[in-house]
Amino acid sequence: MDQEIRPLLAKVEHAYHIVGKKWVNFILHVLMEGPKRFSELNTLIPDLSKRILNERLKELEGCGLLTRTVIPDRPVRTEYSLTVKGQELGTALSHVEKWAIKWL
Amino acid sequence: MDQEIRPLLAKVEHAYHIVGKKWVNFILHVLMEGPKRFSELNTLIPDLSKRILNERLKELEGCGLLTRTVIPDRPVRTEYSLTVKGQELGTALSHVEKWAIKWL
Repeated sequence: MDQEIRPLLAKVEHAYHIVGKKWVNFILHVLMEGPKRFSELNTLIPDLSKRILNERLKELEGCGLLTRTVIPDRPVRTEYSLTVKGQELGTALSHVEKWAIKWL
Repeated sequence: MDQEIRPLLAKVEHAYHIVGKKWVNFILHVLMEGPKRFSELNTLIPDLSKRILNERLKELEGCGLLTRTVIPDRPVRTEYSLTVKGQELGTALSHVEKWAIKWL
């Protein structure tokens, strides 16, 4: 195998490691529609506990895929939105979604 | 979340579960170039032991992503090639590869 392709494929494997984690693709899919508050995400993915949702959101923020914005309203609101990196991942993953619709 | 989207996203999660398994994206990437014999795959991905390569190829065959063809040459050769399902997955995954090149 071409030596240059190896680190790339290791990166791709890392990408699937992120995305393959339970609920991550659900969260990315929902955020592709636009920014959401924690409570909205919680309503949209009711099977997911608040604890795990919070954990996944922190992980995705840590990967630079989403940002958490505190809006100084009354009461204070926290909004989650995809970064450009996250949006571009969402777009790439939509091809895999189409494949899954057709084949799985 | 839309009830119709839930089974789809579960399918997508299943797709990442397949693809996220160590070496699977390497094997798919190499087979996108065309059919390969076991020995060729083994040479192209030298870090992967023959035992694990064989295991992964069987799993991918079980998922309908590749076919194993025995060619009645002397000596008999076994060739692995992607099915249409496997080729279309490879194409979908190339978008994720491009994302990984840019962002990881």
